[in-house]
Amino acid sequence: MIKALGASQGIAIGKAFVLPHWEWELPDQKIDVADLAKEFDRLYEGIRRSKTEINQMKTELDEAVGSEEASIFDAHLAILEDPVFMNEIQGIIQRQYKVAEVAVKEAIDHFVTMFDLLDDEYMKERALDIKDVGNRLLKHLLGAPDIALPEDTQPFVLVVRELSPSQLVHLKPELVLGIVTMVGSPTSHSAIMARAFGIPMVMGVEGKLEQTIGTGDLLIVDGGTGMLQVDPTSEMVSRYTEMRKRQIALREQLLTIVEVPSVTQDGVSLTLAANISSLKELEAALSNGAEGVGLFRTEFLYMDRNRFPSEEEQFEVYRSVAQKLNGESLIIRTLDIGGDKQLDYYELPEEENPFLGFRAIRFSLERKDLFKTQLRAILRASYYGDVQIMYPLITSVDEIREANEVLAEAKRELTEEGIAHRSDIKAGIMVEVPAAVAIADLLAEEVSFFSIGTNDLIQFTLAVDRMNEQISHMYEPYHPAILRMIRTVTNAAKAQGIPVSICGEIAGDVNALPIWLGLGIEELSLSAQAILPVKESMLRTRASDSRKLLEEMFRCKTAGEVRALANQFHAEAALAPGNVQRLM
Amino acid sequence: MIKALGASQGIAIGKAFVLPHWEWELPDQKIDVADLAKEFDRLYEGIRRSKTEINQMKTELDEAVGSEEASIFDAHLAILEDPVFMNEIQGIIQRQYKVAEVAVKEAIDHFVTMFDLLDDEYMKERALDIKDVGNRLLKHLLGAPDIALPEDTQPFVLVVRELSPSQLVHLKPELVLGIVTMVGSPTSHSAIMARAFGIPMVMGVEGKLEQTIGTGDLLIVDGGTGMLQVDPTSEMVSRYTEMRKRQIALREQLLTIVEVPSVTQDGVSLTLAANISSLKELEAALSNGAEGVGLFRTEFLYMDRNRFPSEEEQFEVYRSVAQKLNGESLIIRTLDIGGDKQLDYYELPEEENPFLGFRAIRFSLERKDLFKTQLRAILRASYYGDVQIMYPLITSVDEIREANEVLAEAKRELTEEGIAHRSDIKAGIMVEVPAAVAIADLLAEEVSFFSIGTNDLIQFTLAVDRMNEQISHMYEPYHPAILRMIRTVTNAAKAQGIPVSICGEIAGDVNALPIWLGLGIEELSLSAQAILPVKESMLRTRASDSRKLLEEMFRCKTAGEVRALANQFHAEAALAPGNVQRLM
Repeated sequence: MIKALGASQGIAIGKAFVLPHWEWELPDQKIDVADLAKEFDRLYEGIRRSKTEINQMKTELDEAVGSEEASIFDAHLAILEDPVFMNEIQGIIQRQYKVAEVAVKEAIDHFVTMFDLLDDEYMKERALDIKDVGNRLLKHLLGAPDIALPEDTQPFVLVVRELSPSQLVHLKPELVLGIVTMVGSPTSHSAIMARAFGIPMVMGVEGKLEQTIGTGDLLIVDGGTGMLQVDPTSEMVSRYTEMRKRQIALREQLLTIVEVPSVTQDGVSLTLAANISSLKELEAALSNGAEGVGLFRTEFLYMDRNRFPSEEEQFEVYRSVAQKLNGESLIIRTLDIGGDKQLDYYELPEEENPFLGFRAIRFSLERKDLFKTQLRAILRASYYGDVQIMYPLITSVDEIREANEVLAEAKRELTEEGIAHRSDIKAGIMVEVPAAVAIADLLAEEVSFFSIGTNDLIQFTLAVDRMNEQISHMYEPYHPAILRMIRTVTNAAKAQGIPVSICGEIAGDVNALPIWLGLGIEELSLSAQAILPVKESMLRTRASDSRKLLEEMFRCKTAGEVRALANQFHAEAALAPGNVQRLM
Repeated sequence: MIKALGASQGIAIGKAFVLPHWEWELPDQKIDVADLAKEFDRLYEGIRRSKTEINQMKTELDEAVGSEEASIFDAHLAILEDPVFMNEIQGIIQRQYKVAEVAVKEAIDHFVTMFDLLDDEYMKERALDIKDVGNRLLKHLLGAPDIALPEDTQPFVLVVRELSPSQLVHLKPELVLGIVTMVGSPTSHSAIMARAFGIPMVMGVEGKLEQTIGTGDLLIVDGGTGMLQVDPTSEMVSRYTEMRKRQIALREQLLTIVEVPSVTQDGVSLTLAANISSLKELEAALSNGAEGVGLFRTEFLYMDRNRFPSEEEQFEVYRSVAQKLNGESLIIRTLDIGGDKQLDYYELPEEENPFLGFRAIRFSLERKDLFKTQLRAILRASYYGDVQIMYPLITSVDEIREANEVLAEAKRELTEEGIAHRSDIKAGIMVEVPAAVAIADLLAEEVSFFSIGTNDLIQFTLAVDRMNEQISHMYEPYHPAILRMIRTVTNAAKAQGIPVSICGEIAGDVNALPIWLGLGIEELSLSAQAILPVKESMLRTRASDSRKLLEEMFRCKTAGEVRALANQFHAEAALAPGNVQRLM
């Protein structure tokens, strides 16, 4: 049993099909000076064919899963038009008289090595894109065929060193039970696409396998826990088959409570809103019973593009989301770029510690032109629903005032231009920096609401980068310091009479539910998948018991003690009558 | 007037001497296969001569400024013995038939480009070391002479693109008024040496100059503020000459209070201890009137070496420091490696966000063998003075307990071995992570003292890497959140009856003094240079006024308001009779 990275949820059981490494023999000859022009023509023809093929895939994918996933290929097209990449290839042909194939291969190797050296997840992904595009170009230059998949119609678990989006799009989803890759990260384009297709996927098994996987080997893939089993015993196969059935059954049972109000047994209600990044995710959230959107991450509107989105482009998206919500509230977070989120078309400074760097509101207040464009788009959309604004990474009263000045200016402009908007739009903040907790009472006087972003708050409070494997075990949401800080924020919000919600990943942990109920928090903002399990827990929990439990938690000195109490409480509630989770 | 990085304090006024770029013509010829062996002999002879020369410089520097500064050259010797670097050179000769000079040059370029690409301050410094060593090797291969300095005996301000330690050691300190470099960082070896020599230095002026500086241009260098002025007006020259005189006069006046007890006008005393990293720094601290050592940074014992220091080596240093302190307390912080501090001989994982990474106590608890060795050395030294142990980067009760278990084991061993030590040694912690503030009451029950490390605490609390130029203005010690957190920690310590001190850079800011007096903090731990200015402020401040000021500060909503109060208070006190700072 191998611990891998879970990249797309679900269990797959089936035979492996191992995709061979994508490599060809390259012609080892120099070209004559007289043939330089001809070689360039070959190169341009290869580029043209590659572009046609990419556009075709984009169209196919657009129809199959939607335009956002398809936009991945825009990045590929951009590479084929990137002057730095193209100059490198042309330079090798022109100065070293190498054939186009060799020039392309060397340029790929050059950039991939360089990007890999940077040891940065984002750059590694870009390296994968370059490899993918470069290989396509090579294929057209060499006239090599596409990689062949098994001819018969038996579904299989795909095993591949690394999977490019263009390889994935060529697969028939109904034939692919699951995917295993040696390298790659859950934030890669392929992982995003696997999730869109609903194919279970694990990644990063390289170095963890005792022997290589061969085509025909039986595999079990659990994308939820990130587990891979090669040659399982029949006992395991039946256990996982059972588990898979239960997951599907549980899912069906959970769907029966979509319309049920989220209220505890003793009548306390807690709004379960959704975290979304796109209109598509909103659909998933609504079909899971989301009551409004507590966090719309707008940065994805800015990513995978060639330039900043215009006011009009943003307005269209915000308005569509607002209208689809039918009057339920929509909290739009202003651009949270920087840290681990980068833009292709705007170079942010390289940073030693990007999490402690030039990010989010810091970027917006430095680029007030872009900030105002976004605020204008949000203000215009506010005419079509209960739209609210949220500033990320706030650390001081000054920042709120400065942001609100830009907001006031945007309103003034729209009024002068006679454009409809909500002049009394609510503006709140993410509380995700320890400083904001320490002065929560002062910040509460300046804003309409708080949303506690536990992911960053925990990272800063414990000085732990949760992406850092060496110390990620220290990322501990149940740390007594975290409980106390959340209580401080909640109390400050209540004293000022403003609402407070939780929007980090811990909000989706059913074990943590009594903490929110105990503190009297009004709203959780969750990923679509987490809404129904949390609601199901709500339905069999008593807020009064939660308050008692929380008092006990506050007497604990260590995270281990807090966690034990949370687990025990949940386990006891899980045995209560009517609990669909018992099916698990 | 150009804003540069201040690398070594003091004002220099004088004419520029511009050191030309260190570059030679390389022989453009291939070698014959038959001559390969001869070429290798040339290479080895060059290496031998380089080593001899480096050893000679090391000896000279050792006599001039001490063994710690001289140990810089150990890193250079290590490069000449580094198999990766040497293989690269030999490979180029053997496979490409290039002459040794070209091979060395290409190897230098290869590693320097690679290290520079990593965009990491530490690796950049290593790149500079490789360039320095490689250039020396080149010089010996080419038979080129050393760079010539002006022949006459007029003192000058040295201007150079980047300065290597070996260039610096060849300068006569009495002739060098100041140093200006285009690139480089204040943590570089050259900057450390300039500080040791007492030569004012600014760095990083590249891109900030309108025109290049020529030999003979008049310059003013202010290493304290990081200011560089090219072709100053005569008015500026007389102003800075005056300022320089005042700095020297002030320094002399401050030396008159070395023996005066640090007590406020209303009789409140505050211990002014020192932050040190070496025995040499202790001497400087004691001559500035330090009352004990509040922070001995042991990581420098581990750096600039080839392997971990043995128990015996550490014991010798700790005992020497303890004995020199003559009964005054010595707080030894256990290894605080990781983050921006790396070891040459032990590869720590590369991290996206090293400040939120595998560091300090996290490293020690993972490498308990090394940790126990250090604790044994400290315990043995504790027999010779009032030695105490401090754990860095503590985030939880669990970590303290785990560290104390190792401490208990070390004591048990020493007892069994019959080795003298202080079995009741005090163990305290750095409070520098927001989580530790939030649970300060719980941590206080487990330890003998707190020392608030404001540098890291401010970085984590505000989510600001202060080394990051783009946002370093947001690093704000006077942020209301910071004041509140320091108060929380102080109150928790008092409730438990344990002492609390401040050991970050802000402790050396005379404007911040009323904060410590207002909170009733017992000790500050300062750099040697900061002790007397802070004591001078103490002598004319009233603790009762400080308490009133602090109350006002706690009513402020922004850092700007707090800072204004602090500045005003200090300015008023500075006008009081007997204030030597009026000389400024």
